[in-house]
Amino acid sequence: MKTTALLSPQFGHPLTTTTIDRRELRDDDVDIRVLFCGVCHTDLHALDDAGGAFPVVPGHEFVGEVVAVGASVSDFSPGDCVAVGNIIDSCGTCRMCLRGQENFCEEFPTLTYGGRDRIDGSSTQGAFSGRYVAKSRFVYHLPANLDPAAVAPLMCAGITVWEPLRAAGVTHGTRLGVVGLGGLGHLAVKLGVALGAEVTVFTTSPAKVADARALGAQNVVVSTDPSAMDALRSALDVIIDTVAVEHDLAPYIAALDLDGTIYSLGHLGPVTVQTLSLLIGRKRLSSAGSGGHSYTQDLLDFCGENGITADVEVVPASDVTTALARLRANDVRYRFVLDLRDVDNTVV
Amino acid sequence: MKTTALLSPQFGHPLTTTTIDRRELRDDDVDIRVLFCGVCHTDLHALDDAGGAFPVVPGHEFVGEVVAVGASVSDFSPGDCVAVGNIIDSCGTCRMCLRGQENFCEEFPTLTYGGRDRIDGSSTQGAFSGRYVAKSRFVYHLPANLDPAAVAPLMCAGITVWEPLRAAGVTHGTRLGVVGLGGLGHLAVKLGVALGAEVTVFTTSPAKVADARALGAQNVVVSTDPSAMDALRSALDVIIDTVAVEHDLAPYIAALDLDGTIYSLGHLGPVTVQTLSLLIGRKRLSSAGSGGHSYTQDLLDFCGENGITADVEVVPASDVTTALARLRANDVRYRFVLDLRDVDNTVV
Repeated sequence: MKTTALLSPQFGHPLTTTTIDRRELRDDDVDIRVLFCGVCHTDLHALDDAGGAFPVVPGHEFVGEVVAVGASVSDFSPGDCVAVGNIIDSCGTCRMCLRGQENFCEEFPTLTYGGRDRIDGSSTQGAFSGRYVAKSRFVYHLPANLDPAAVAPLMCAGITVWEPLRAAGVTHGTRLGVVGLGGLGHLAVKLGVALGAEVTVFTTSPAKVADARALGAQNVVVSTDPSAMDALRSALDVIIDTVAVEHDLAPYIAALDLDGTIYSLGHLGPVTVQTLSLLIGRKRLSSAGSGGHSYTQDLLDFCGENGITADVEVVPASDVTTALARLRANDVRYRFVLDLRDVDNTVV
Repeated sequence: MKTTALLSPQFGHPLTTTTIDRRELRDDDVDIRVLFCGVCHTDLHALDDAGGAFPVVPGHEFVGEVVAVGASVSDFSPGDCVAVGNIIDSCGTCRMCLRGQENFCEEFPTLTYGGRDRIDGSSTQGAFSGRYVAKSRFVYHLPANLDPAAVAPLMCAGITVWEPLRAAGVTHGTRLGVVGLGGLGHLAVKLGVALGAEVTVFTTSPAKVADARALGAQNVVVSTDPSAMDALRSALDVIIDTVAVEHDLAPYIAALDLDGTIYSLGHLGPVTVQTLSLLIGRKRLSSAGSGGHSYTQDLLDFCGENGITADVEVVPASDVTTALARLRANDVRYRFVLDLRDVDNTVV
């Protein structure tokens, strides 16, 4: 089938509305009319990488309405509200997949765009589009009580912070630090607060102190203030570091208490730490990214029960270039979501 | 009081028998006749460091017999067999001390030698000596069923591996890796096996394969064999890395399974890791060192119940120079212990 999409044909070219192919429904597929799709930093990287895969249609955290299902799909029906994240397939047989951690698939998961379909070898194209076709295993029911536009960012930003929060056992009374208050960080604060944690936000921006408190943080530290940082030595059990530019982890490791763990989620590449800084207090440096099936369903259930969604700025699909430019400048609180309802979603 | 000790007066000078001062008993002190003292790599570092603190009497893992106790000491009596490790005091009031983690004392613990006494400011001198005087809080009862000479190394090598084993929750069925089969490594294997773990030893030395199996390891990998290393990808829950020279942690991180933790105990200084290697599987890099009061008592109890001691080569104190030279060449299985019973332990 053919559908409308926002596509960049080659590096340096803006997204323009065009027509792309989607595969015909397989037996285990769901055909989704895309309603809302979050705008992630990954989308910027895909468009701004001269060596990246073009043509590209970005978009990997979206919600939509089921139009049709394949012959063997029993858990979705036309009209269902659904959500999809940044993984749409995996080998399904490795140890990670069998544990519902398809994000760590030993054969590498198939990404929602920029991936390679495991059946026909075609390149996957993202959800800045009228329609999306995905294997039902990677499609999730949307909690009925949540604003669909504000759910979209849960599927990438949300799950990326949720997995380490859960894996670290964050619960009532956990002293949780969140570094950076952006798309990921603001969800880490909301989810941490809902889990019962005492949340401390680290930000370089004094202007965000009030915002962090409004999101539920009990404590906010401007990380450029040495005395404020020093006052937090050994004060936290878990830290979710969402900062995606190179920075020194040492001040945050120092803020961990005995057996505490810091998860660096910013794809920092190589990082250097002093083993002595880990030794004193048996502290742990970790990372995480994206989410598998089990944690994703868990996240959506939790958000439905607790009324949690992302704080979003919904913009029409026609404003995508402006939204991307503002995201490059970090000018968003906290996530852009494209409204794709006006995109032509008929198929040919 | 004065007692006999093996002392190096300055850098480059061998240990020679001389007379040193020990403090008079304070109310909370225990006066110990030293029987056996392990020889640790730290002792080599102290002697081989041109910028180190001299004069120095090494020795910080020892067992002995109580000669006298201070007025307020009620849990030890003359004639008791006791053990002391590498910490003999701490502030006692910080958060770490209050949790029995004096090894992480925020005011830094007082080391058994090369430290500074918290009361009179004098330099502490180690247990290659006829007598030692220590605060009772840092003196431990020896399990009656264990060979005292072979207990001595538990107090440094043993506790250093025991804390991370316990903190990581190693138990029946845990898939435990141990990197390096020396003083620390062989105890990590014995303790891991006794905890019920399935132990895999990584060694660079094919000659140690049989030794590792004899210690109870179910699996031994020569770490220079790429295919053997590759076969262990994602195969382990916890790794205790005892190697004290610079080496690449990446192959061991790759051997960790989901949420697995590697503890690097070798004081490697700065280490560089790829965050992506931690991300895929949410793996954790940590470290640990020495032990606090609670874990040390726990270790001695566990070793008493399970009949665990170090494999030692006991040598007379007069052979200390030979023992140090052989330790420099890694020629020991697995720990030298000095027999100090013939040292003049009378005091003047």
